[in-house]
Amino acid sequence: MIAKTPKPPYYAVIFSSLRTENESDYHEIGALMVELAKKQQGFLGIESARNDLGVTVSYWSDLEAIKSWKNNTEHRLARERGRKEWYRSFKVRIAKVERDYGTEIN
Amino acid sequence: MIAKTPKPPYYAVIFSSLRTENESDYHEIGALMVELAKKQQGFLGIESARNDLGVTVSYWSDLEAIKSWKNNTEHRLARERGRKEWYRSFKVRIAKVERDYGTEIN
Repeated sequence: MIAKTPKPPYYAVIFSSLRTENESDYHEIGALMVELAKKQQGFLGIESARNDLGVTVSYWSDLEAIKSWKNNTEHRLARERGRKEWYRSFKVRIAKVERDYGTEIN
Repeated sequence: MIAKTPKPPYYAVIFSSLRTENESDYHEIGALMVELAKKQQGFLGIESARNDLGVTVSYWSDLEAIKSWKNNTEHRLARERGRKEWYRSFKVRIAKVERDYGTEIN
């Protein structure tokens, strides 16, 4: 469940959000977007947790991969519903991972 | 609860972890570390969520601020207990936030 990413450098997209109470299609489309992201070139992994605040970090090989995923039609439509229906507030941060360390076992 | 960070560039430390079942002092020291981090020069904010996986992202002005916090004695002792007692597995990623966007309301 901790993403097994390659040696840096690579990129992280940090998506932080607060939800509305609207559950309509939220879990279904969320799961679909994860499946779709996994198929994108340059996708390296994803980590996600939610209490009140949700923090989802996806990892990508480079900015080009992030841009392609951002332009994916299904992803665009999902983000539009997200902004209108599911998220009260959100922030996206695009960051270049320069260094990492930790335990090897998952 | 979504961190109000300044305009990029700034840094993110992404801490991803899986817990053991050892609860001894975990919440107390965790809360203490957040309070202590907030007092460090260059600290910009923190976002955290946990289900099975925990994802905590702290934001910092620069690498020097991250290094100072890493060398803080109380933080060192807490990390040592974390490795021995609280975390089955973890990963730390240090990343430079190059771009961010989102809603303004929290």
